[in-house]
Amino acid sequence: MRRAVCPGSFDPVTVGHVDIIERAAALTDDLVVTVLPNAAKRCLFELDERVEMLTSTTAHLANVRVATFDGLLADFCLRNGITAIVRSLRSVSDFEYELQIAQMTRRLSEVETLFIAACPEYSFLSSSLVKDVASHAGDVTHLVPPQVRDRLREKYRSPASR
Amino acid sequence: MRRAVCPGSFDPVTVGHVDIIERAAALTDDLVVTVLPNAAKRCLFELDERVEMLTSTTAHLANVRVATFDGLLADFCLRNGITAIVRSLRSVSDFEYELQIAQMTRRLSEVETLFIAACPEYSFLSSSLVKDVASHAGDVTHLVPPQVRDRLREKYRSPASR
Amino acid sequence: MRRAVCPGSFDPVTVGHVDIIERAAALTDDLVVTVLPNAAKRCLFELDERVEMLTSTTAHLANVRVATFDGLLADFCLRNGITAIVRSLRSVSDFEYELQIAQMTRRLSEVETLFIAACPEYSFLSSSLVKDVASHAGDVTHLVPPQVRDRLREKYRSPASR
Amino acid sequence: MRRAVCPGSFDPVTVGHVDIIERAAALTDDLVVTVLPNAAKRCLFELDERVEMLTSTTAHLANVRVATFDGLLADFCLRNGITAIVRSLRSVSDFEYELQIAQMTRRLSEVETLFIAACPEYSFLSSSLVKDVASHAGDVTHLVPPQVRDRLREKYRSPASR
Amino acid sequence: MRRAVCPGSFDPVTVGHVDIIERAAALTDDLVVTVLPNAAKRCLFELDERVEMLTSTTAHLANVRVATFDGLLADFCLRNGITAIVRSLRSVSDFEYELQIAQMTRRLSEVETLFIAACPEYSFLSSSLVKDVASHAGDVTHLVPPQVRDRLREKYRSPASR
Amino acid sequence: MRRAVCPGSFDPVTVGHVDIIERAAALTDDLVVTVLPNAAKRCLFELDERVEMLTSTTAHLANVRVATFDGLLADFCLRNGITAIVRSLRSVSDFEYELQIAQMTRRLSEVETLFIAACPEYSFLSSSLVKDVASHAGDVTHLVPPQVRDRLREKYRSPASR
Repeated sequence: MRRAVCPGSFDPVTVGHVDIIERAAALTDDLVVTVLPNAAKRCLFELDERVEMLTSTTAHLANVRVATFDGLLADFCLRNGITAIVRSLRSVSDFEYELQIAQMTRRLSEVETLFIAACPEYSFLSSSLVKDVASHAGDVTHLVPPQVRDRLREKYRSPASR
Repeated sequence: MRRAVCPGSFDPVTVGHVDIIERAAALTDDLVVTVLPNAAKRCLFELDERVEMLTSTTAHLANVRVATFDGLLADFCLRNGITAIVRSLRSVSDFEYELQIAQMTRRLSEVETLFIAACPEYSFLSSSLVKDVASHAGDVTHLVPPQVRDRLREKYRSPASR
Repeated sequence: MRRAVCPGSFDPVTVGHVDIIERAAALTDDLVVTVLPNAAKRCLFELDERVEMLTSTTAHLANVRVATFDGLLADFCLRNGITAIVRSLRSVSDFEYELQIAQMTRRLSEVETLFIAACPEYSFLSSSLVKDVASHAGDVTHLVPPQVRDRLREKYRSPASR
Repeated sequence: MRRAVCPGSFDPVTVGHVDIIERAAALTDDLVVTVLPNAAKRCLFELDERVEMLTSTTAHLANVRVATFDGLLADFCLRNGITAIVRSLRSVSDFEYELQIAQMTRRLSEVETLFIAACPEYSFLSSSLVKDVASHAGDVTHLVPPQVRDRLREKYRSPASR
Repeated sequence: MRRAVCPGSFDPVTVGHVDIIERAAALTDDLVVTVLPNAAKRCLFELDERVEMLTSTTAHLANVRVATFDGLLADFCLRNGITAIVRSLRSVSDFEYELQIAQMTRRLSEVETLFIAACPEYSFLSSSLVKDVASHAGDVTHLVPPQVRDRLREKYRSPASR
Repeated sequence: MRRAVCPGSFDPVTVGHVDIIERAAALTDDLVVTVLPNAAKRCLFELDERVEMLTSTTAHLANVRVATFDGLLADFCLRNGITAIVRSLRSVSDFEYELQIAQMTRRLSEVETLFIAACPEYSFLSSSLVKDVASHAGDVTHLVPPQVRDRLREKYRSPASR
């Protein structure tokens, strides 16, 4: 794979995401990590906050860069010479949803989707669950990178975000 | 089967729905296609728009008519002499949800639910995914009937529906 | 549906099978219950024993008859003017296997497969589990028709079948 | 198990919940039934209504008491000397979600989660489905305790809650 | 729970099994670990070898003892005053099979089955996979207790067991 | 990806396998297709027959070669500088099994497994189902490459292989 993309909501990026990005980066010459535009989903973090956290968290990976886009992921791939999308699989529910999206993507373009299995120790980890724990003042130290933990604390300390 | 019903949200009808309706119509004397009342779900198309698209899309099927109703589907069936509900199955998630509804329906009435497997080539197709593609200006030509494609273009051209 | 088929191994027929056959018979003019030829699977009961148990168990259903055949089920359907196969679904594992078979059947012929959900109270019931319980001298009275229970007792009493 | 907790939204409690509570109570010295705080989920019944219905419905069980709490369930367990959480499993979708929560809970504390299979005859039953049926004036008599049925009738009679 | 049973084939016991036994032992006064009689399944280790490996592997747990039996597990429980069976869940396939067995067990007796989620880091581990790795001279050091690893080496060194 | 491997039983190779091999070849510099050694599984075709069919079927792909090996796939990868295994996913059952194998492979080595979704139109296709159809004289023309169809006819014509 010359150039691949690793898309997600990353609201916020977890240690599980970082693991997938590192493993995907090892298999490609050039990896783009991209925040999916999703008007429907209400996010805790603004787009620029999510990009900042991703950028600092992946700064140690020379062949990785963070990007954003509007429109369809398939079109973003075509415009950027990306031939493969890398997605992580944790559960059967993930799998069915991802399979549907992957097949639609191939129908709209010739872009392939490659799935990597989440590390067993991160298999239960998701951004939603992390937010749920953090919102109840639970400890998320080993679940997200340090700067993300700090930002979560700020978010849930201020009454407005509750 | 004398009279069966093929219920759905049809927001909007896709070529996958049309395939199921054609196959169900071939197995019954009389097939009612009905738009489910669903207060909770916000729809892109109004009820009358969905009925119009269904009616024109199924006009070539002599034993099919489109209907709407209020209340429970089980009650609609009893009032109309319908003995079977026909539902399409694509995925395991579909299956579990549909199984639950089918068992509740039998508990409330004696109406049976019959499941047909979606065509493999439409297995990834859903109204939500079609709307997602159309909202990002993707091409849905082979995914929905022509009049539905045109209506989707109109909806997503006007700023109000975004 | 004019004529449908309800195929299975029926090694042996359980009360869950009888429930499905009764419900399928109520939806068709003419229902054929057929024992699938399966060279690979070692059965406890001979083909003629399975047919005998099915015949006596379905004797109260006027529009049901039991048949056997060689070859592909799709070919049996075409030869006998059968337009639909009725199969029961209990679990996700059932569903995935049955979906595969149904799609292959449609590829080889135009015969449709219709799925009915097993009754909740029989959802855990299978011929294998019944044989397992009976082989350990467990009570299968409410799991199989009376004559099947008696035959299971005989089978597991004689040392040869253990 | 000395002391266990049976958590849920109970919006409202169904006969399926009561069955699980009775079975869990038979396996523990002391069982706490607790209504989960869930800011995100919009409930039909207020917290105090849900507690009232649970309390009267479990009044016949000497070793069961109903409690509410704020924060994380894992913290509630630690504060109250609870070593196990009891959860019911109905479907594969339940299972995957519950597995994720159970693994996160063990990561945050040493509290174990024990799963019990729902009774086959209640396997299709959920609070959401009950509310859906009741909101369409369907009969929920055998699905919820009598006082819950009466409260559902009141809720859906008043125009405000529709 | 006063007395529970943790049944399995244990062909051979893995570190995943040991983790489940330790966690189950912490929740019960008295835990019986039992090797299921299974005539149909061809095992690599003889029954007495499996019992020996289990016994030495669980020797550090004061309230655990290893037992064997003939017949149905439900009957074994009734004869020994056991009110609960503890089973581990790793995957959806596990879950569906275990659910079926648990519901059959409750139909035959009043014995409950409680499920514990496998530790994420052992979620991919099974006796079959361990045997597959060992048979190809792979390293199973961190997958099974040391004495089991040694026995596997012996088994696969001798030409007869291949 | 510089060098990847596409392993399977290929008993026999189907058009679904060929599709996966072509798509994997487009994403790698060098792709090895390998027949997995599997003592336990009884195959219809001998190892050399399977290699022959694979070789002729993939002859049009310049960067693909067919290989066999003994031992663990992880060891084969390490010996041959292969950093990724490519596997196809069709169903949830596939997914759970493959996930387990992928996680074990990473535990034994650093070799990654990448999954590609089967084409929707081949999602129901498997070597077993093809053999089942062919053994009952069904037409497998569009399911396998021409030379495989001919070999299947020969196999099932001769009485010995039945």
